[in-house]
Amino acid sequence: MSATNHYFDHNGTTPLDTRVLEAMLPFLSQQHGNATSRHAYGRAARHAIDQARAQVAQAAGAHPSQVIFTAGGTEANNLAITGISQAAGIGHIAISSIEHPCVTRPAEAMQARGWALSRVPVDADGNITAAAVQSVLNKESLLLSVMLANNETGVIQDIAAIAETARRHGVSVHTDAVQALGKIKVDFAALNVHAMTLSSHKINGPQGAGALIVDKRIDIQPVLLGGGQEKGLRSGTENLAAIVGFGAACELVSAELLQRTARLRQMREQLETGLASLGAQLFGASAERLPNTSFFAVPEIDGETLVMALDRKGFAVASGSACSSDSGEPSHVLLAMGVQPDLARGAVRVSLGVDNTTEHITAFLHTLQSEVNRLKRLTAIAV
Amino acid sequence: MSATNHYFDHNGTTPLDTRVLEAMLPFLSQQHGNATSRHAYGRAARHAIDQARAQVAQAAGAHPSQVIFTAGGTEANNLAITGISQAAGIGHIAISSIEHPCVTRPAEAMQARGWALSRVPVDADGNITAAAVQSVLNKESLLLSVMLANNETGVIQDIAAIAETARRHGVSVHTDAVQALGKIKVDFAALNVHAMTLSSHKINGPQGAGALIVDKRIDIQPVLLGGGQEKGLRSGTENLAAIVGFGAACELVSAELLQRTARLRQMREQLETGLASLGAQLFGASAERLPNTSFFAVPEIDGETLVMALDRKGFAVASGSACSSDSGEPSHVLLAMGVQPDLARGAVRVSLGVDNTTEHITAFLHTLQSEVNRLKRLTAIAV
Repeated sequence: MSATNHYFDHNGTTPLDTRVLEAMLPFLSQQHGNATSRHAYGRAARHAIDQARAQVAQAAGAHPSQVIFTAGGTEANNLAITGISQAAGIGHIAISSIEHPCVTRPAEAMQARGWALSRVPVDADGNITAAAVQSVLNKESLLLSVMLANNETGVIQDIAAIAETARRHGVSVHTDAVQALGKIKVDFAALNVHAMTLSSHKINGPQGAGALIVDKRIDIQPVLLGGGQEKGLRSGTENLAAIVGFGAACELVSAELLQRTARLRQMREQLETGLASLGAQLFGASAERLPNTSFFAVPEIDGETLVMALDRKGFAVASGSACSSDSGEPSHVLLAMGVQPDLARGAVRVSLGVDNTTEHITAFLHTLQSEVNRLKRLTAIAV
Repeated sequence: MSATNHYFDHNGTTPLDTRVLEAMLPFLSQQHGNATSRHAYGRAARHAIDQARAQVAQAAGAHPSQVIFTAGGTEANNLAITGISQAAGIGHIAISSIEHPCVTRPAEAMQARGWALSRVPVDADGNITAAAVQSVLNKESLLLSVMLANNETGVIQDIAAIAETARRHGVSVHTDAVQALGKIKVDFAALNVHAMTLSSHKINGPQGAGALIVDKRIDIQPVLLGGGQEKGLRSGTENLAAIVGFGAACELVSAELLQRTARLRQMREQLETGLASLGAQLFGASAERLPNTSFFAVPEIDGETLVMALDRKGFAVASGSACSSDSGEPSHVLLAMGVQPDLARGAVRVSLGVDNTTEHITAFLHTLQSEVNRLKRLTAIAV
């Protein structure tokens, strides 16, 4: 991309930190190896993966032995939902109504195979209360999955309280922490869940690596079968360079989280002050949210049209979650929050990253104002 | 690894070609992107993936629309076995008795869920005949999976003949071509199979990318569910840099296959002449084999011990397939060929790559001779 492009879609994917790339490069050249091999190359690969495992565990408040590497967040969420349900046998699964499709669809697949499935409702701000969780659990419940922070609104859930409620019912708890890691403190032990999903490419690490953090006291069956890597829970040759990069990105998160959060929060405040003066409506405004995410609509302006207009001006933002932006439907997250479909169709997501600056925000707000004015004139003419 | 180390384990994994790394680097820096995003970054990522899809198709004798990218060979084999079986409904699955665990174990998982499972026997040289395939198929058969070339022995199967037999029974055919690509010509159309597995890191491409080539006339259900990438058959953010690298590695295969094959064959002849003069027994000796693979045993010498001894001298070879070398059992491939367990425990695999030289082979044979002599003296003392 040219230097005039500004990237504001960090919940979609993030640029690779140059320090992470430095850490990966030896493993993309002379230090190749299959970590299952017993010779010197294999042992060096195993050693590098063990180091990355410790780095990931450190950033997530977990023990290295709890880290199961996968190819990404989608695979880890599939492993959690399918693997825990299959190991427990037929019963009841509960997920929140605002989960990512890589939680929702595996849960629906289990439903097609005989499991019961419920969705926990959210309130108008996108919050999931322990009472709402309580209302859907029953004696057959075996698994609850509620994301730590939502990819679209950035709303953060009180997972510790939710987990406490679920544990009282003897239910295993999974949380998708893909969007939370690197933006807020993520502590597996303090959240007191049984399984937690992480992804490398959302924290300035490489694509192709993720992890499921697993409390070893729960049973889980693998989804990908074969050579028995990752304690049998994830077969397939370990993606050595990507895992090393994921570890390096986690180490940077551990070292820099507070300063990153402060910078993101400051930029977001500047952004949201500007959005308010534009008449934009912010979703989840009163909820606790990730410091980098603003999901908003300008009344009477179509979100997709606005995203395309901003793209032509060099600003990359999203109209919904990237992973489902091929569908023309309004955001299922907003509909679950009770937002009217007409307003939901106006939704635009700005997700900031540490590579952004306040100058980027100023330029963005300027362009947004002129594009909104232009689109409003077009609408007025059309009417 | 130091310059004095010689890597002879290319069926385990291969070093990344520096030209492939060059192709990847832009996508590990400024050209980051989520291929599902609609903005300029996302469209650039999509374009790069489409180019890689064409490169992979070209190297494999397929059409770009038939290429489903996965995180690797294991995932592609799981997708083929589980996805085709599930789509067809309960019935009979046949696999050869020498498949990789990432075919065998998904097939066994389907068996646990109600499907019938048979194993096609191999002859003493590791060949699977069309008659042997015919003998296990029945009216309930829905899927046959036979690998194109074996990872341990390198024996190449006549997949076109096998597929013709299976098609006469209305059975879908899958072949695991992970070890064949880059070493012999691989032509999806000519093999006339319905699905074929490829892997990037076996052809001097990066780890973390693979593909299932799929004839669109067969039904297949996804294993990983979520955002619906890869036509719904493989959800999860595309690993952009790895896919670009896989494409670049395939383009090099298309351009250089003949010269690679000739070089590998010449080095292997030098190796096997030396092995014969050492009294080594070569497995699958009379079968058609990959030009880079020699699987042998020196009678009365334990394979694992010899591999460790060679490793200490700077030569990386395998005692079996890397993916299952944690188990102490003799190779299931050799046992299926009727090799006595005592001899099978002596098995050592040398798998050459384009980075090897005839000087490496000479040095290896010299060291092998002295280590064999030393181990024989130790054995004589122990007895």
